[in-house]
Amino acid sequence: MAPPQRNPEERPVGALLAPDIVALLEESPADIATETEEIHPADLADVAELLEKDQLQAFLTALGPARAADVLEYLDEELRTEFLEAITPRQAAELVSEMTPDDRADTLEEIDEEHAEEILSEIPAEARQETEKLLSYEPDSAGGLMTTEFVSVAADMTVEAALDNVRAVARGGKKEAMHAIYTTDVQGRVVGVMSLRELLAAPTGARISEIAWTEVVSVSPGADREEVARVIANYDLVAVPVVSESGHIMGVITVDDVIDAMQEEQTEDVQKLGGMEALDEPYSTISFWRMIKKRAGWLSALFLGEMLTATALGAYQKEIDKQTVLALFLPLIISSGGNSGSQGTSLLIRALALREVSVPDWWRVARKEIATGLTLGIILAIIGFVRIELWQAMADHHWTFLTFQLGHDYDTTYLNNLPVVHAGQHFLLALTVAVSLVGVVAFGTLVGSMLPFVFRGLGFDPASASAPFIATFVDVTGLIIYFNVALHILLR
Amino acid sequence: MAPPQRNPEERPVGALLAPDIVALLEESPADIATETEEIHPADLADVAELLEKDQLQAFLTALGPARAADVLEYLDEELRTEFLEAITPRQAAELVSEMTPDDRADTLEEIDEEHAEEILSEIPAEARQETEKLLSYEPDSAGGLMTTEFVSVAADMTVEAALDNVRAVARGGKKEAMHAIYTTDVQGRVVGVMSLRELLAAPTGARISEIAWTEVVSVSPGADREEVARVIANYDLVAVPVVSESGHIMGVITVDDVIDAMQEEQTEDVQKLGGMEALDEPYSTISFWRMIKKRAGWLSALFLGEMLTATALGAYQKEIDKQTVLALFLPLIISSGGNSGSQGTSLLIRALALREVSVPDWWRVARKEIATGLTLGIILAIIGFVRIELWQAMADHHWTFLTFQLGHDYDTTYLNNLPVVHAGQHFLLALTVAVSLVGVVAFGTLVGSMLPFVFRGLGFDPASASAPFIATFVDVTGLIIYFNVALHILLR
Repeated sequence: MAPPQRNPEERPVGALLAPDIVALLEESPADIATETEEIHPADLADVAELLEKDQLQAFLTALGPARAADVLEYLDEELRTEFLEAITPRQAAELVSEMTPDDRADTLEEIDEEHAEEILSEIPAEARQETEKLLSYEPDSAGGLMTTEFVSVAADMTVEAALDNVRAVARGGKKEAMHAIYTTDVQGRVVGVMSLRELLAAPTGARISEIAWTEVVSVSPGADREEVARVIANYDLVAVPVVSESGHIMGVITVDDVIDAMQEEQTEDVQKLGGMEALDEPYSTISFWRMIKKRAGWLSALFLGEMLTATALGAYQKEIDKQTVLALFLPLIISSGGNSGSQGTSLLIRALALREVSVPDWWRVARKEIATGLTLGIILAIIGFVRIELWQAMADHHWTFLTFQLGHDYDTTYLNNLPVVHAGQHFLLALTVAVSLVGVVAFGTLVGSMLPFVFRGLGFDPASASAPFIATFVDVTGLIIYFNVALHILLR
Repeated sequence: MAPPQRNPEERPVGALLAPDIVALLEESPADIATETEEIHPADLADVAELLEKDQLQAFLTALGPARAADVLEYLDEELRTEFLEAITPRQAAELVSEMTPDDRADTLEEIDEEHAEEILSEIPAEARQETEKLLSYEPDSAGGLMTTEFVSVAADMTVEAALDNVRAVARGGKKEAMHAIYTTDVQGRVVGVMSLRELLAAPTGARISEIAWTEVVSVSPGADREEVARVIANYDLVAVPVVSESGHIMGVITVDDVIDAMQEEQTEDVQKLGGMEALDEPYSTISFWRMIKKRAGWLSALFLGEMLTATALGAYQKEIDKQTVLALFLPLIISSGGNSGSQGTSLLIRALALREVSVPDWWRVARKEIATGLTLGIILAIIGFVRIELWQAMADHHWTFLTFQLGHDYDTTYLNNLPVVHAGQHFLLALTVAVSLVGVVAFGTLVGSMLPFVFRGLGFDPASASAPFIATFVDVTGLIIYFNVALHILLR
C-alpha cells in the first residue's frame, strides 16, 4: 500500500490515516495488534476518532485491554464517554482497570453517575477504593491531578537493592509513575527524592540516604492546578509529590498532566479575556446552542451594563443639543478609557498568575498605574489636540487638496461645510477633548489594573476581568468625565 | 537559629530566606557549600537575588563553579547578565562551561555581543562551537530550545550493555538529557526511542532493537515553540528529539524548557490580547519608561484608528442635530459589536493555537459565526427593544415609583422631562436600535472570528488580534450601520 499523503504541519509524526485502519480492520485481531504495536496511542486515538462506532469497538477489542486503555486515554473525551457508556459495565471495567489511577478517575468523572458506579462495582476492590478517593478531590486540584501509583524505597537501602527494587516494579507491568523515586522513613513519611538518573549514577555500595535530596519540593492535595504548574515550572521538575500534612505521600503529579492542565488553563483564560464563559470543549465539536449559551450570557450582561451609558447620556442630552460636535468625539474618548484599562488588566492578570505581585502589593501597583495612566493620557491628549486643530486649520484655509491627499476618509464637501463647532470655539473643543482624555485614560488604567486584585480578593479568577468587562465598566465613567469637562470648558 | 516565618502560599517549599544567607556568608566557603548542598538551586537563586553585588559574588564563589552555574540558571535574567558582565571573561567562562549547552546559549544570548565573544573565546573549542551553533537558531525555535547533550545507544546492543553505557554516562558528571534514550543505526540516524524505565524493565539478554519504539516522535529544528509544546502535550512526552531532514538527532528539547516557553507564550498572548506589546520582562521589575513604550505604541495606534469614528460621525452630524436621541444609544450599539467580535477572536485564537481548526477551515468557521452572530444579535435586539419600550411606557404612565424601584440609576426628573424622542416615535427608535444591533453584532462576530485567520495567513501571531483592536475595527462600521438603519426607519 502506498503511503498516504501527509501534511507534516497538521500531523507532525507518523500517524496511520483512517483509510489504513479501515483496511486493517479486515485483518485478524492478532494482525491488527501486531501492525499497530509501534504506533503511539495518541496517533491511534486520532484515527480511532474517525471510525464508525462498531468499527471503533472492533478495533479496540483487537488491540487487547492494555493497549485499548492507552488509546482511550488519548481519545476525545466525549467519544470516550459515549463508548464506555455503550458497552457493558464489565467490558468497560476491564478497560479502565488498565488505566493509571489518575486517568481512570478522570475517565469515570465524565461518565454519568449511574454508569460510573456500575463500572466501579466491576473493578477489583483495591483499585475501586483508590479511584473513589481520587474522585473525591476537585478535578482542578493537586488531588484531582495526581496518580496514586509511584515508586518509593526505604532511605536505608543500598543503591543496588533499590535499583533491583525499581527494576522489579518496572517489570511488574503496572504503570507506576517513575519520573522520580521517593525515599521514606520508617513511619512512611517522605524524606528524600532522586531521579532514576541519579540512582543509576550512584557509586556501587552507597546507601540511598547518601544520594537522595532531602529537600523535597511538594504540593498539598488542595493546591490549585495553577499552583502545581508554578511549582513544576519553578523547579524544572518532571513530577511533584502530593504530600499530606502528616508528611506522607498521597500521590504524584506527572508533568504531562500539568502540561494538559496548563493548556486548558490558557484556553480558559483567553476565552474569559474575550468576554465569555470558557467553552470547556473544543470549538470545532461544540454544538451550536451550547456555544450560544456560553457566549450569550456574558454578552447580555455586558449589554445591560452598557445600557447605563444610554441612561447617563440622557442626562447630557441638553448639552448634546447645544453642541452636537460633542457627540462626534464620544466613541473616541470612551474607547480610550477601555483600551488603557484593558492593558492594565492583562498586565496584572499575568503578574498575579506568575506571583510577580500579590494582593498586598495593590497600593504599590496603584501608584505605578496612576503615573502610567497620566503619562499615557497626556500622550493621547496631545495627539487628539493636534488632530482637532489641524483639521480646523485645514478647513479654515480651504486646504482641501491636503485633506484629499491625506486620505479618502475625509469627505471634502463635508470639510467645506464646516464649522462643525461654533466659530472660534475649536480651541475650546480641542482642549475639552485633551483634558477629558487625560482623565479618562488615567481612570481607565487605574480601574483596569485594580480589578484583577478585586477579583482575586473575592475569590474569583482574575482572568474574568476581561477587556469587554473593563470597557463596559469605564464607559459610563468616561462619558461623565467628558461631559463634565465640556461643561467647564466648551459650554462654560 | 529559629526558622524564619514563611508564607507557604508565597514560597511553597523549603527555601532559605535572605537573612540566613547573609549570616551564612560569614562562614568559610566550604561551610557555605555544605550547608546549602541540599537546597534546590531555584531556592538559592531566589535568595541570591536579594544579595548585594559583592555578596552575590562571594556566595557564588563559595558554592564552586558547578553549583554556582546551577544557581545562575535560575537567577533573574537581568541580574545574571549584569553579574557575568561584571566578572572577568575567564571567570564567566568557567561558570557557563558548567551549564547545559542550551542554558549556556540562552545565557550568552542575553549578554552584550562583545562580552559574549570574550567569554566564548575562553571556553574549550568543542563547547564553543556547539554553543555558537545553538546561538545561530532563533531563540523561539526548536533549535533554540534544544540541548545538544543527550544519550543514544546502538540499536544492536544488548540491554545490559546499553544500561552499563547509560550508567557510565550518568556517572560522567556531565548534564546529558536522560529523559529518553535514543537508538541509532550505523549511519547515526535515529531509529528508536525508549524511556529509562523501559530500559530497566527489559528482560536480561534482550537486544535494544527489541524494546525500543520504532516510531519516534520528533520535531524539525525550525519548528516554532508552540509547535514543540503541542507535540510534547499531544504525546505526553518528557523530551522530544530535534531531527534533521537526513534523520540525525541534532539535539533534544526537555519538558522543563517547554513549560517555561509555554508560560512565556501565555504571558505574551494575554498581554497582546490586552492591546499592547508583550513586555518580555516581569511587570514588577520593568522600568517606568520601558513600560510606557510597550503600552503607548498600541494605545496611540488604537486611538488613531478610533479617530475614524469622529470623522464618520461628522458625516451624520445633521442626523444627530435632528434627533439627538440617536447619540444616546451610540456607545451601546458600537460596544456590542466590539464585545461580540472579541468573543469570536478569542475563540479562534485558541482553536488555531490548538490546531482544532486551521486556515483552510475559514469558510466553515465563517458560516458558523454568521449564524452565531445573527442569533446573538437577535437576543440583544430583543433586550434593547424591550428596554426602550419599557422606559417609554414608564414615562408615559408616570410610573416613576417603578423606575425608582428599578434602581437609582434612573433619574426620575429626567424621565418626567420626556419625550427624549419626538412623540409617538419611540417605537421607531426601538426598532432602529434593535435592527442595528442584529447587524452590528453579526458583523462584529464575523470580523472578530476572521481576523485571527487573516493574521495567521499574513504570518503574524493571531493573538495580536486583541479585543481593543477588534473594537476599534468594528466601531466605525458599527456606527455607519446604525445611522443607515436610522435613516431608513427613524428618520425616514
